[in-house]
Amino acid sequence: MRKIEIFDSTLRDGAQGEGVGFSVTDKINIVKALDNLGVDYIEAGNPYSNPKDLEFFERIQNYSLRHARLVAFGSTRRCGIDVREDKNVQALISAGTEYVAIFGKSWDLHVTEIIRTSLEENLRMIYDTVEYFSSHDKRVVFDAEHFFDGYKANPEYALATLRAAENAGAVCVTLCDTNGGCFPEEISRITETVCKQLQVQVGIHCHDDMGCAVANSLLAVEAGAGMVQGTYLGFGERCGNANLSSIIPSLQLKKGVACIPDDKLEVMTKAAHYIAEVANLTVRGSMPYVGSSAFAHKGGMHVDGVNKLSRSFEHIEPQTVGNKRDFLLSEVAGRSAIIRRIHDVDSSIRKDSPQIAALLQKVKELEYRGYQFESADASFKILVLKTLGRFKEFFRLEDFKIIGEPMRGENANSATAVIKIWVGDRLEVTAAEGEGPVHALDCALRKALEVFYPSIADVRLIDYKVRVVEHKRATAAQVRVLIETTDGDSVWTTVGASTDIIHASWEALVDSIEYKLMKDQKGVN
Amino acid sequence: MRKIEIFDSTLRDGAQGEGVGFSVTDKINIVKALDNLGVDYIEAGNPYSNPKDLEFFERIQNYSLRHARLVAFGSTRRCGIDVREDKNVQALISAGTEYVAIFGKSWDLHVTEIIRTSLEENLRMIYDTVEYFSSHDKRVVFDAEHFFDGYKANPEYALATLRAAENAGAVCVTLCDTNGGCFPEEISRITETVCKQLQVQVGIHCHDDMGCAVANSLLAVEAGAGMVQGTYLGFGERCGNANLSSIIPSLQLKKGVACIPDDKLEVMTKAAHYIAEVANLTVRGSMPYVGSSAFAHKGGMHVDGVNKLSRSFEHIEPQTVGNKRDFLLSEVAGRSAIIRRIHDVDSSIRKDSPQIAALLQKVKELEYRGYQFESADASFKILVLKTLGRFKEFFRLEDFKIIGEPMRGENANSATAVIKIWVGDRLEVTAAEGEGPVHALDCALRKALEVFYPSIADVRLIDYKVRVVEHKRATAAQVRVLIETTDGDSVWTTVGASTDIIHASWEALVDSIEYKLMKDQKGVN
Repeated sequence: MRKIEIFDSTLRDGAQGEGVGFSVTDKINIVKALDNLGVDYIEAGNPYSNPKDLEFFERIQNYSLRHARLVAFGSTRRCGIDVREDKNVQALISAGTEYVAIFGKSWDLHVTEIIRTSLEENLRMIYDTVEYFSSHDKRVVFDAEHFFDGYKANPEYALATLRAAENAGAVCVTLCDTNGGCFPEEISRITETVCKQLQVQVGIHCHDDMGCAVANSLLAVEAGAGMVQGTYLGFGERCGNANLSSIIPSLQLKKGVACIPDDKLEVMTKAAHYIAEVANLTVRGSMPYVGSSAFAHKGGMHVDGVNKLSRSFEHIEPQTVGNKRDFLLSEVAGRSAIIRRIHDVDSSIRKDSPQIAALLQKVKELEYRGYQFESADASFKILVLKTLGRFKEFFRLEDFKIIGEPMRGENANSATAVIKIWVGDRLEVTAAEGEGPVHALDCALRKALEVFYPSIADVRLIDYKVRVVEHKRATAAQVRVLIETTDGDSVWTTVGASTDIIHASWEALVDSIEYKLMKDQKGVN
Repeated sequence: MRKIEIFDSTLRDGAQGEGVGFSVTDKINIVKALDNLGVDYIEAGNPYSNPKDLEFFERIQNYSLRHARLVAFGSTRRCGIDVREDKNVQALISAGTEYVAIFGKSWDLHVTEIIRTSLEENLRMIYDTVEYFSSHDKRVVFDAEHFFDGYKANPEYALATLRAAENAGAVCVTLCDTNGGCFPEEISRITETVCKQLQVQVGIHCHDDMGCAVANSLLAVEAGAGMVQGTYLGFGERCGNANLSSIIPSLQLKKGVACIPDDKLEVMTKAAHYIAEVANLTVRGSMPYVGSSAFAHKGGMHVDGVNKLSRSFEHIEPQTVGNKRDFLLSEVAGRSAIIRRIHDVDSSIRKDSPQIAALLQKVKELEYRGYQFESADASFKILVLKTLGRFKEFFRLEDFKIIGEPMRGENANSATAVIKIWVGDRLEVTAAEGEGPVHALDCALRKALEVFYPSIADVRLIDYKVRVVEHKRATAAQVRVLIETTDGDSVWTTVGASTDIIHASWEALVDSIEYKLMKDQKGVN
C-alpha cells in the first residue's frame, strides 16, 4: 500500500488566516490533537518571527509525541550575508527540532522584483541554507515558494532552485502554489514533470484562492507527490490552505493511499471540532467529511434512497470518519425522514399508525407557521412526546409581563420581566431585569424554577438566533428564534415562532428548560 | 472567444442546503439579482413538490428578465405510467417556462435498487418524458443523475441514458456527480469521452463532498462541457454544490472562456453579499474571489510584497470582481470607501479635514459596536449630517414604555407601547398596541408624529431583519436590526444595534422616519 506523508501547518500557515490566532497553550493542545490523529509532521511556527513561537518551542520539549515530528519554519539566508551570521537561521537551530522547513524563491520575478537580487545569488542562498542545516544534523524540507507561477514563467530557473535544494541535501522539495491561482491541469502536469526529473521526494502545498486546493493536492499525489502540506481545517491566509481533513479520507478510503493510521480515520470528525474549538472557530457545517451537514439529507427522494441503500446517495459511510447521517425536516423532506426521527424517540410506533399521521400533520402545520425542526432536535422530541400524550409537565405558565424602556447607557438593564408559573399546585411569582426583554424573561424563568429544580443552575444558553421568516409584513412579520443550550454535559437546540419576538423566544426558552428536566429525570434517548 | 452557459440552481438545489430556505419574495429577489448578473439559466424550483414553488412560478410571470431564462425542475415520468398522465409532468407544463430540467437515472444500481424497474423501462421513461416536453415546445435540459458513478459501474448503460435524451430532443445533457464522490481525473476523463460520443451539448453538475466541486467543474469545461450547473455561493445539500462565484472568474479572467457579460464581473462580490443576505446567511470570509478575506494579507512579507507588486501575492486584481484588498494589521482599508460615501452627502469636505477624521473614527466605533452601514445608506447619511452639526431635529424622544404579555391566540395584540415625544415645544403622549413590542412601538411612533407630519401616513416598512452579531452571550448578545422603508417614491434602509432588540429596532425606526422627513423637506441627494 502506497504511503504519503501528511504535513500539517495549522499552527504556522493556518495562523495567517483572518480571525485565527493561537496562544502558546492553544498550540500545545493542537499539537497533541494532531499527534493523536497520526499526522507525520506538524509545522509549528517560526521561532525568529515572534517570541510566542520561541516560548512554544521551549515548552513543547516537555512533551513526547507518539507519531508526529515537529517542524520549525524559516526562510533561506538573506542575500549577501554569510549563512552562519543570519539570525533567522540561528533561531531555527535553537528551536531544537529534528526537522526544519525552509522557504525560498523559485519565481524569477520574485527574485528580481521583491527580494531584488540576482538569480545566481538566490540559488546560492537556497544551497547554502539547506546545506548548513543538513550539516547540522537537521532534516530539511525545502518549500519552493510560488513554484508553479515560477515554472510557468521560467521552467529552467524554477527547476534549478529545486536542484539547488536537492544537491544541498534536502529530504523533500515542496512545490507551492502560494497565490492559489493555478488550474488543476497545470498542477497535475507540472508536478508530473518535476517528479520525473528529481530523485528527492516531492511535496505539494496549495492555497484555495480558486477553490481548487483540495483537488490540486489530490492531483499532485496522483502525479507522484509523496508529501501533502495543508492545514487540518483549511485555515490560512486569504482563502486558506488545502484542507487536510478533506484530502486524507479521499486518499485513504478511496485510493488506498495511506495517510494516517487506519484506526485514526474515525476520530477525524472529533478532532475537527476540537481543533476548531481551540481556535475559537466553528467547523463549517458543509465541510466535506467532518462538517455537521456532510451527511445531512433533505430532499425527499434522497432521504428515501438513503433509507433503501446508503451508498445510493452517500459517497462513503459517515461512521468511517466518525461523522453521522442526518435527515433534515423541511417542506421538501419526505415523510420517511420524519418517521425516522420519530423512531429515534420511540421505535415501537408503527409506520401506518394514526399517531404517525397526526404527528406528520402537526409538523407540516408548524413548519408552515414558521417553526423549523431541522436543527431543533430537542423541540422535536418534546413535540413528539406531547403529541403522543406522554409528556410529563414540569411547570405551567400562568402569566408574564414585560416592561421595556429605552436603554439609559451602555449595557444597562432596559427591561423587567414579571413571571407567574405553576409548579404542581404551587404558584411562583418572581421578577428579573435584563438587557432587553428576552434576557429579562430568561433570568426570571430560571429564578422561578431554580426553587424547584436546582439543576437548572447548570444550564447556560450558548447561542441565540433570530430569523425573520416572512418579510412582507415588516415589524409584524413572523419571527423564528433558535436557542442552543448546554448543561456542560451535552448541547441541545430548541425553536419558537411567532409574530411577537418575545413570544417566540419564550417558547424556545421553555422547550430548552423542559428538555433539561426531562433529560435529568430519565435520560433522553 | 469560447462561451459556456451558466446554470444557477441556488433556488432549487441550493434550497436543499441545511439552514437554507426561501420565501416566494426571497426567490423573486434572487432571480432579479442573478438576472442582473447575466447568468444564462435560473433553475427556480419544482412546481410539483410544493405549493410555494407553484405560487412563485405564477408571480414571476409579472417580471420580465433581461438575460436569464427561467427553468422549472422535475423528474422523468414514473415507471409504468403514461407520460400524459403523470402529475409531475403536468405540473411542469403549468409552470409556463420555456426551459425545463428533467432528471433521470443513469446508474444501473439506482434503476434496479431504488426505483426498482427494468433498465429498458428507465430508458423509455427518459425518452418519453424528454420527447413529450420537446413536442410541447419546451427546451429540455436532461440531468443524468449519478452519471459518473453510473459510468464507472456500467459505461454502456450510462451512455445509453444520455443517448435516449439526445434522441428525444434534449438541448443539453448534464453529467451529474450527485454524490460528490468522484476524483478530478475521473471527471476529466469521463467528460472527455462523453463529449466525443455525443452531438448534443454536455453540461456538468458537481457536488462538493470531497471538496472538489469547483475543480471538477473547471476540468469538465476543459474536457468539452458547454454548460456549468452550480449555485452562486455553493449552497446545496450536504457539502453543497459547485460554487459558481468561484468558477466564473477563473474561466473568464484566466482562460478567456466567457460566462457572464464582461462588465458584470465587477458586481460579483456585491451580488454574493446580496444573495447571502436574502438567504439570511453570510458569505464565508475565505470564499474565493468574493469573500471578505479573499484578498486580505496578514503575513508581513506578503503585505510588503503586495505593496511592491500586487501580482506577486495576488492571483488576480481584487477590483476585477468588485472585491478589495485588505491589510489586516492596518486600518487603512475601507478609509477611501467611507470618504467616497461622505462625499456623496457633501462633496465639498476636504479629504484631510478634521471632520473627515472625526467621521471615520465614529464609523469605526459604531461598526465595532455592531452597526453596519454597508447597506444602511439612510442611516449613514443621517450620521454624516449629525456629525457635521447640520442635522435639523424633527422630534425628540422623552420616554417610551413597552408592556409585553403572552399572546392570547393567533395574531392577537400582545404588546402595548406608550410613547412620549417632543416636537418643537409640544409634548405628545400616545399609545398603541401591536403584535409584539416592535410592532407596537412602530404604530405608536407614527401615531404621535402624524399629528405634526401628515406625510408619514405614506410611509410603510417593507422589510425587517434581525441578526445576532455576537453569539457568545446568548440572549444578552448584541443584535443588529435593519429596516427597509418606502413611501411609494423610493426605498431606504436604516440600522440599529443594541443588546436590547427593542432599542435596536427603535433606533432603526427613528432613522427611517427622520430620513423621510428630511427627504420631504429639501430633497436628499
